[in-house]
Amino acid sequence: MSEEEQEGLAPAPGFSQAERDAVYRAIYERRDVRDEFLSEEPSRETILRILDAAHHAPSVGFMQPWNFILVRDPALRAQVREAFARAVEAEAQAIEPERRTLYSSLKLEGILKAPLNICVTCDRARHGTTGLGRSQQPHMDLLSAACAVQNLWLAARVEGVGVGWVSILREADLRAILGIPENIAIVAYLCVGYIAQAYRRPELEAKRWARRLPLGELVFENRWGKREDEGRS
Amino acid sequence: MSEEEQEGLAPAPGFSQAERDAVYRAIYERRDVRDEFLSEEPSRETILRILDAAHHAPSVGFMQPWNFILVRDPALRAQVREAFARAVEAEAQAIEPERRTLYSSLKLEGILKAPLNICVTCDRARHGTTGLGRSQQPHMDLLSAACAVQNLWLAARVEGVGVGWVSILREADLRAILGIPENIAIVAYLCVGYIAQAYRRPELEAKRWARRLPLGELVFENRWGKREDEGRS
Repeated sequence: MSEEEQEGLAPAPGFSQAERDAVYRAIYERRDVRDEFLSEEPSRETILRILDAAHHAPSVGFMQPWNFILVRDPALRAQVREAFARAVEAEAQAIEPERRTLYSSLKLEGILKAPLNICVTCDRARHGTTGLGRSQQPHMDLLSAACAVQNLWLAARVEGVGVGWVSILREADLRAILGIPENIAIVAYLCVGYIAQAYRRPELEAKRWARRLPLGELVFENRWGKREDEGRS
Repeated sequence: MSEEEQEGLAPAPGFSQAERDAVYRAIYERRDVRDEFLSEEPSRETILRILDAAHHAPSVGFMQPWNFILVRDPALRAQVREAFARAVEAEAQAIEPERRTLYSSLKLEGILKAPLNICVTCDRARHGTTGLGRSQQPHMDLLSAACAVQNLWLAARVEGVGVGWVSILREADLRAILGIPENIAIVAYLCVGYIAQAYRRPELEAKRWARRLPLGELVFENRWGKREDEGRS
C-alpha cells in the first residue's frame, strides 16, 4: 500500500446532478423557524443523525470544540422563555423608534412551542488553549461551532425538522439555567421540531424587516471594493 | 389570498431518501483541502453558484453581513503566502514541544496551489450597529458569516470543488494586503479549486494529529454534564 493510500487519499467521485440539486434545495429551503413547530418530538435516532452531521463540521485543528445540550424539560424551557422575554424588552429599546412597532409584531422564538431545544456550546480549551490554527485567530473555535450549527440546520431540514436560532438571550441567563461552566462559551440556542409549513422566503423578508441584498454587490475582485469590470481594466 | 399566503407560508414538502442521502454525503465527504488542488479554475458561473449558496445562509436579523473577495492575482496571493509563512513560524512556538515535529510536517495551506482564494468578511455595522438579535449577543454577525462559509463549502463539494480554510494568518496582514477597512471583520481566508482526490477521513485525523471524538460523549440532557441515563433517573 502506498504512503498516500495509508494516509487515506482516495479518488473523490463527483456528485450527480440530482445530488447537487438536493444539496442546493436544502440550502435554499432552510428557514429560521419560529412558529411552525408541530408537537411531535423527533425520535432519538433522528436527533442523533442531525447531531452527527453537526459533529462532522470542519473545526480548527480538528478540535471538535462543541457540545450539545438537549433541553426537553418544560420547567427549564419556561425559564429560558422568561429570560427571552426580559432580553427582548431590553432589545426593543435599542431598535430605531420608527421600527419598534414592526419589531414588536415579529414572532422571534419557539422555545416552548418546539418540543426540543438544543444549546450548542464551545469548549475553548479543548485539546489545550493554544492549538493548531488558533494562535493568530483565537476565535476560530467559535466559528467552527457555528459551522456545526449550519450542518445541523441543513440535516434537520432534510429530516423534515425545522430549526430556529434564538439570539435574544443573555449568556449569563442561559449559563445559570443550564449549569454551563464559565470556561464554556455558548454559541447557539436552537428550537427544534417537525414542521409541515415554512415561509417561501426568509420570514424577516416576508414581513418586510429587511430585503435580500443583490449578490453582485457583495462580491469584490482581488481587493476590498473592487468590482469585476474595474478588476479587468 | 389569506394573510398567511400573503406572508409566504406554504407547505414544506419532505425530502426523498435519495435527497437526504445526497445532503448527508456532502456533509460527510466535505474536507479541508490543502494540497489536492488542480490548476484549472472553476468558471465564474460555478463560483457564483457557490457564493449564492453562501449568501443563503442564515443571518441574525437577516443582516447578510458578508462580502466575498475573489483573490486571483498571483502577486497578492504570494503576499498572503508570505504572511502565512511568518504566522506559522510564530504558531509553531506555541505548540507543545513534543508535537512540533509532527506540526512542521503538516501541509496547512494551498494559497498558491489553488487557482482561487476567497476572503469572507463581515460588515459589523451593516443595517446599523444594534440590530435585531445582536443586542444581547453582539458576535452573532460573525457566527452568521461562519454559517455562510459552511454553505459555501458544501456547495463547493457538490461542484467537485475543494475548499481549505487558512486560519494561520494575522488579521492585520490580510487587512493590509487586501485593503480591508478597519470596520470590516475578516472571517475566513479560503483556498478554492477543483479536486480529483480527497482524504477518506479528515487529514488531521489521517495524520494522527487528533482523533474523532465519540458523539455520545458530547451530548448532554437538559443540563451541562448530564448524560442520558442520569437524565432519566
